[in-house]
Amino acid sequence: MTGTSFVLRLSCPDRVGVVAAVTSYLAGRGANILEAHHFLDPVAGRSMLRLVFAPGRPGFDRAAFEAEFGESMRPFGMEWTLRDLASRVRVVVAVSRQSHCLMSLLHRWSAGTLPIDVAAVVSNHEDQRRLAEWHGLPFHHLPIEGGRKEAQEQQMLALFRDYGGELLVLARYMQILTPAACRELEERAINIHHSFLPGFKGARPYHQAYQRGVKLIGATAHYVTDDLDEGPIIEQAVERVDHSFTPEQLTTIGNEIESVVLNRAVQWHAESRVFRFGNRTVVLR
Amino acid sequence: MTGTSFVLRLSCPDRVGVVAAVTSYLAGRGANILEAHHFLDPVAGRSMLRLVFAPGRPGFDRAAFEAEFGESMRPFGMEWTLRDLASRVRVVVAVSRQSHCLMSLLHRWSAGTLPIDVAAVVSNHEDQRRLAEWHGLPFHHLPIEGGRKEAQEQQMLALFRDYGGELLVLARYMQILTPAACRELEERAINIHHSFLPGFKGARPYHQAYQRGVKLIGATAHYVTDDLDEGPIIEQAVERVDHSFTPEQLTTIGNEIESVVLNRAVQWHAESRVFRFGNRTVVLR
Amino acid sequence: MTGTSFVLRLSCPDRVGVVAAVTSYLAGRGANILEAHHFLDPVAGRSMLRLVFAPGRPGFDRAAFEAEFGESMRPFGMEWTLRDLASRVRVVVAVSRQSHCLMSLLHRWSAGTLPIDVAAVVSNHEDQRRLAEWHGLPFHHLPIEGGRKEAQEQQMLALFRDYGGELLVLARYMQILTPAACRELEERAINIHHSFLPGFKGARPYHQAYQRGVKLIGATAHYVTDDLDEGPIIEQAVERVDHSFTPEQLTTIGNEIESVVLNRAVQWHAESRVFRFGNRTVVLR
Amino acid sequence: MTGTSFVLRLSCPDRVGVVAAVTSYLAGRGANILEAHHFLDPVAGRSMLRLVFAPGRPGFDRAAFEAEFGESMRPFGMEWTLRDLASRVRVVVAVSRQSHCLMSLLHRWSAGTLPIDVAAVVSNHEDQRRLAEWHGLPFHHLPIEGGRKEAQEQQMLALFRDYGGELLVLARYMQILTPAACRELEERAINIHHSFLPGFKGARPYHQAYQRGVKLIGATAHYVTDDLDEGPIIEQAVERVDHSFTPEQLTTIGNEIESVVLNRAVQWHAESRVFRFGNRTVVLR
Repeated sequence: MTGTSFVLRLSCPDRVGVVAAVTSYLAGRGANILEAHHFLDPVAGRSMLRLVFAPGRPGFDRAAFEAEFGESMRPFGMEWTLRDLASRVRVVVAVSRQSHCLMSLLHRWSAGTLPIDVAAVVSNHEDQRRLAEWHGLPFHHLPIEGGRKEAQEQQMLALFRDYGGELLVLARYMQILTPAACRELEERAINIHHSFLPGFKGARPYHQAYQRGVKLIGATAHYVTDDLDEGPIIEQAVERVDHSFTPEQLTTIGNEIESVVLNRAVQWHAESRVFRFGNRTVVLR
Repeated sequence: MTGTSFVLRLSCPDRVGVVAAVTSYLAGRGANILEAHHFLDPVAGRSMLRLVFAPGRPGFDRAAFEAEFGESMRPFGMEWTLRDLASRVRVVVAVSRQSHCLMSLLHRWSAGTLPIDVAAVVSNHEDQRRLAEWHGLPFHHLPIEGGRKEAQEQQMLALFRDYGGELLVLARYMQILTPAACRELEERAINIHHSFLPGFKGARPYHQAYQRGVKLIGATAHYVTDDLDEGPIIEQAVERVDHSFTPEQLTTIGNEIESVVLNRAVQWHAESRVFRFGNRTVVLR
Repeated sequence: MTGTSFVLRLSCPDRVGVVAAVTSYLAGRGANILEAHHFLDPVAGRSMLRLVFAPGRPGFDRAAFEAEFGESMRPFGMEWTLRDLASRVRVVVAVSRQSHCLMSLLHRWSAGTLPIDVAAVVSNHEDQRRLAEWHGLPFHHLPIEGGRKEAQEQQMLALFRDYGGELLVLARYMQILTPAACRELEERAINIHHSFLPGFKGARPYHQAYQRGVKLIGATAHYVTDDLDEGPIIEQAVERVDHSFTPEQLTTIGNEIESVVLNRAVQWHAESRVFRFGNRTVVLR
Repeated sequence: MTGTSFVLRLSCPDRVGVVAAVTSYLAGRGANILEAHHFLDPVAGRSMLRLVFAPGRPGFDRAAFEAEFGESMRPFGMEWTLRDLASRVRVVVAVSRQSHCLMSLLHRWSAGTLPIDVAAVVSNHEDQRRLAEWHGLPFHHLPIEGGRKEAQEQQMLALFRDYGGELLVLARYMQILTPAACRELEERAINIHHSFLPGFKGARPYHQAYQRGVKLIGATAHYVTDDLDEGPIIEQAVERVDHSFTPEQLTTIGNEIESVVLNRAVQWHAESRVFRFGNRTVVLR
């Protein structure tokens, strides 16, 4: 028994009896449900279910549970994951030159208020070494030399694997991943885009926002896909601005929003709350 | 069969197997769960469960279901309600002289976007007769004569019963109900208070807000209890203001917030989303 | 003397002494400044100034003031307007079939909390006649017959002129004005777009928002230009939504935002707070 | 000439000609007004004016300006300050054991996006020494020994003076200052209170919020006065929460709000935007 409660996250094609089958299975083993949230998406025709339960008996055997549960639920065609809430999602953070998202993420991590375990920081620049090392984290400088982006990306992916990474957080990494990397990291890489998507895709969104004269600016955290800025949105937020804000001041306000939004997306992912289908997400809170 | 889906809302002391018992009962009768949300409150030690399901077979017999389900669940000590989503909660609205909350509620009702059926409007003033009657609603003027508040309140409660009222919405009614009325209407009367409680209890909250120089003003919808302004909060919202707003302008902004907040609380109540215990609520969305 | 205070709104190329010249002119005539807000836009290189003042002497002669002030300020190349705050901007409202924006605008107007004077409602449909007439307003049904949009638009513009219209409010009018009409109504027509621009331009934005899975939806009020959905933004707001909202529910939430945003834009325009240059606005609050 | 622009912040009893006198004075010396904002508070009967101007001539002599300007404006009874925008307000930060506000403030300071110059960090605990020293700042541990709070406070005030402190930021300092210290630091000390005042005054506001079941939590930055939690509010913000948040999770969300709100208040103070009268503020933005 490695912890006191578990989160079971599953989805399957809609069918009568899914919730009953799963909850009866748990009740039959004495497990107590602490939280349950089920949503049937009418477009996808899929049931999504998130359950937090406390195992009912000392000596809960996770491996046995997984084998048996998998067997029992075979008829439903479920995709499912089980996570011990006492464990933490292993994260590698990729950054470029800016510190705000990294700093905020590491602060929340070191305060113990994000259920993640940061393993390392990687970057194409040296700027954030000092911050990473101050937090006792290994920092890997992976410069893009002579435009050889793919080679550098391979190094990053190798490091991610070596560290046992479960989630790659692009905390303003500013490099576009290749389609191959996007596939390898499917639903395991979260990016923060510094605009309220779908407005202001592409580069320099705060300057775009200034040009367009918008009255609110925002940020969007999404899973990385090879369709840039079209990845499934996990979280967004905005803040009010006005004509008197320069692009630099918009950037300062925006940086605050980015940090908050990225932290929320990482937290919800790590708490097994996010279901992705197509370019949408369901976040069961 | 009176509709295509039902909402089952229940709470009971925490115990292993509650969710399994309820969902297995439904699955056994072929019902398909569309939404499910369960929350175990650690303070109250109670499970709260809201289920939306589609009956699996034509000719669903609601009375039989209620009798049988009640019997099956007896060991759990459940409090539960079943509502056909095609039916609408029968509402009586009480107002005083101001129109904004009434107008907004009636607009949403007539647009069909609130699952309520407004039966009548009552008021201690004549001002809103024209608006009520324009919407084809009976309007009852129940003046408070010679300070005889209790007699007038009894008239209002009698009307509420006569109309088969399920929910009394105090849309800026501005009169304090007696403890006896509060008990009779327990969890069946929603009030809108024109401040962000617990700030600015009591009279003239926008003037209080002006005096205090707050930078946000708000509104709070809550169940009516005999502890004034301490009723269980269902919903709250705020809007940004600044020093340049006069009390009158704060009132105008505040009126907009009140309308939105009251409509949300009424909607969530009517959708069987709100659980009350003590002076708190759980709103399962 | 037609009122107790005036708002002077002016802009001119940046030059030393603009504010001093204007405020000294006023002080020299005994006028007391109640509010002043000046902004120098660094891109446009223009000064924008909004002043509220109380004339210092009984028998303030507005015509004389206008003649004299215009003469004095000639060297600055100013564009300026003077408005008696006791007067109200004359508004014609254009609607299509939906009521929410019209209802909210007329409610605020009849409550006296918008400094406008609604003269008439025009529509290409009959639906809102009852609401307009309940408020004692003339309603003009201008159907688009046999696709003859231009003829119908000419009728609408003729009515606007006949009513002495100063501002045309497109409160979900749903028809695109011709470039000629846009030019005639430059800075005198405000539209509400039912999305947070620049996201979701074009038709059915709430359905687009649903498809894209955004976590906030919004609305944008802007001056009408012949570059559709690219007009200068006056105000925007958003509200939080999630995966469980159907397109219909997004629409309901969105309608509330639209009403609030449109009212704010109309209010700020009517209070002479909005300066437009290019496709941006400065709103001096 | 020590910079390219200056901010002049002044208030005086309402009188015709204040704005004209000040702006004419500037124009007469060739200064160009970049921003101007004037507000006449109807309750206090005072004019408040904030002007940003670029001196018109090379070799702007600040001392001469101050002497001459003071003399010229004597009849108006003005209180005024002049600040070179290139200079930065000298700040001492007081903290207790928690890091979030300190970290966020130092991050913004080191990024150059707050117009402050942090001189030192003082604390009654050792916890934040490492963070302060990482930023190259002196850290002074001033423990409260044997309940001798006044002696410790005197040490802190002496340090504040020695560092040439202009603003003391209580970034979750958690100690109540004596009335004498409050007077000495009048309008020069900003505190962050971890609730949306006037709700939840006093200790453990997030636990109070949990007990009360509020649906939004907030934070308030205010000038320190000897009437605890009643100081003039500079800025406030809130975030949405629900029943599922534990007091610890409310605290985590609240900490984010506190950081943002405190930074904004410090920025506006440092930009000479805040006017205090009685227990209210005017923030000219």
